[in-house]
Amino acid sequence: MTGEKRVAAGMAGEGKVMLDLDRVRLAARRLDRVAHKTPVVTSRTLDGLCGAGTRVYLKAECFQRAGAFKFRGAYNAVAALDAAQRARGIAAWSSGNHAQSVSLAAKLHGSSATILMPKDAPAAKVAATRGYGGEIVFYDRYTEDREILARDLAARRGLIPIPAYDHWDVMAGQGTVALELIEEVGQLDILLVQVSGGGLAAGSATVLKALCPEAKIYGVEPEAGNDTALSFAKGERVNIPVPHTIADGQQVETPGKLTFEVNKRLLDGILLVSDQEIANAMRFLFERCKLVVEPSGASAFAALLREPKRFAGRRVGVTLSGGNVGIERFCDLMNRFPPGAGRAAP
Amino acid sequence: MTGEKRVAAGMAGEGKVMLDLDRVRLAARRLDRVAHKTPVVTSRTLDGLCGAGTRVYLKAECFQRAGAFKFRGAYNAVAALDAAQRARGIAAWSSGNHAQSVSLAAKLHGSSATILMPKDAPAAKVAATRGYGGEIVFYDRYTEDREILARDLAARRGLIPIPAYDHWDVMAGQGTVALELIEEVGQLDILLVQVSGGGLAAGSATVLKALCPEAKIYGVEPEAGNDTALSFAKGERVNIPVPHTIADGQQVETPGKLTFEVNKRLLDGILLVSDQEIANAMRFLFERCKLVVEPSGASAFAALLREPKRFAGRRVGVTLSGGNVGIERFCDLMNRFPPGAGRAAP
Repeated sequence: MTGEKRVAAGMAGEGKVMLDLDRVRLAARRLDRVAHKTPVVTSRTLDGLCGAGTRVYLKAECFQRAGAFKFRGAYNAVAALDAAQRARGIAAWSSGNHAQSVSLAAKLHGSSATILMPKDAPAAKVAATRGYGGEIVFYDRYTEDREILARDLAARRGLIPIPAYDHWDVMAGQGTVALELIEEVGQLDILLVQVSGGGLAAGSATVLKALCPEAKIYGVEPEAGNDTALSFAKGERVNIPVPHTIADGQQVETPGKLTFEVNKRLLDGILLVSDQEIANAMRFLFERCKLVVEPSGASAFAALLREPKRFAGRRVGVTLSGGNVGIERFCDLMNRFPPGAGRAAP
Repeated sequence: MTGEKRVAAGMAGEGKVMLDLDRVRLAARRLDRVAHKTPVVTSRTLDGLCGAGTRVYLKAECFQRAGAFKFRGAYNAVAALDAAQRARGIAAWSSGNHAQSVSLAAKLHGSSATILMPKDAPAAKVAATRGYGGEIVFYDRYTEDREILARDLAARRGLIPIPAYDHWDVMAGQGTVALELIEEVGQLDILLVQVSGGGLAAGSATVLKALCPEAKIYGVEPEAGNDTALSFAKGERVNIPVPHTIADGQQVETPGKLTFEVNKRLLDGILLVSDQEIANAMRFLFERCKLVVEPSGASAFAALLREPKRFAGRRVGVTLSGGNVGIERFCDLMNRFPPGAGRAAP
């Protein structure tokens, strides 16, 4: 198989799912000793809040390399390339964590990365991407189409594009989060994952349904960024304007083509959370669990914290997907969304 | 041995050290499945900052029950009591973490706790102590002598006093932090621990010198709270006014009687850090390591971050002793001590 064809194998396949437990296990082998096996955090306070017999397992991907689960998928996709492809360099477009992850993954493989980032991406994420050696090209996310810009950039410079989610090896890499969690804590009844483009959800659902066939998996979106919820309701991919939400990692306009193929079959539903609830979740994780979690990283947990009794007596996995938030932004968010405002945390 | 004598055995022994590796191992057995085995956090960025070949191991006691290492010593001391003593109830005096820990330890043993706390103790610590069922009696730390008040309270109510550090079983419990760290990562060259009353330092030094005889251990104090540094220089315990420092867990006026007996023999020196350096350390731990660490919990790390090259090529353990800081206080501290002010972090 030529290099071009292998890239195609990662990105093609609309209407045909090329993701299964074996592909995730292959990713896990590639990531062994490269990605961190992130800790699973538990809290008796939290279990008690949900009710007798509940066990909540927080998979803390804020401790992943480059600060988020995105490293897993990016590294797996770069690892799947051959030497000639890596020599050409990687192109990616991302609001942040995928940018950092592709930069680091490229560097670890002796390749290079060029990243298209929105001008209003958080400063900490821009700085971190540069720190890993990525070259950044800025665009305006509210007026320009990043996919067209990115494909144009890749074509002009001869780069290999690695999208943030619409790629089977990226999805397989993200699936290793759920694989590790289940290997560590055993059977789950419920898994909550944040949904942005849908790569983490697709990888997680593939693993969960294979290993815990009775378990339910719910994707969680910010209320303002409910493109997957709307798409589920309509049965096809729906476009929304760029959502204004504090969850900068979840500001997508539409589900991925390939991820939607997986998620529409495997997810048991989508839960929506408000920005206030996301801030409440960040506050709880900071003060009670001593964890720094960024807004999109806290949204799955926000769905649990909003109605904890709903999960009573169950074994619940929750993915805290990343921790890349600077202190100034964190404190500004906590100030704008004080405790007790809006729908309160318990 | 009667109950009274066993309490005496924990608190007596000035001039005679009743702490060794066996006493720490006994504490570890009591704490097994009760205390958390806290994770050891590593960071390639941090290792690189120190120089080639350096390995820094952060023992994250912010994830300990009740949010700090103090739970270990308090639980071990309560576990050493007999049923009749526990029935009388426990008395303790503390600026915060020991208060929470004694309350929780008493509750877990079916006992009760009465805690003398300074009026200006952080609100989060007061609330947490109450949350664990402790009864609080307030005093003014700048005008009243808490030891006299506490002993008076204990005598009037017939309670068993458990001091925050001057007690062999408390020190033995704190020593389990170093024991776990060395059991997990192997031999260390250097261990950095914060020094307040000296219980964590005494327990840690006892373990380190037994298991890694060549290793050095340094205690770290805030510049304003340099009572142990002054005491080391003079060769006897020195009293200072209540120090004004952001490290509320290190606002002691003099080293403990018993802890000083241990520390003057086993510590290789005391390092001092400024409040700005402590804030820099909290910032680094938040943004780079995604950890919430309170000021006194970050002071040992501040000593490393101040002069990272000093530790080049070594295997360095650093105890992050606790994470009990509310978001409002955390953000206020970060605002008062912005990055780049004072002696900068690298």
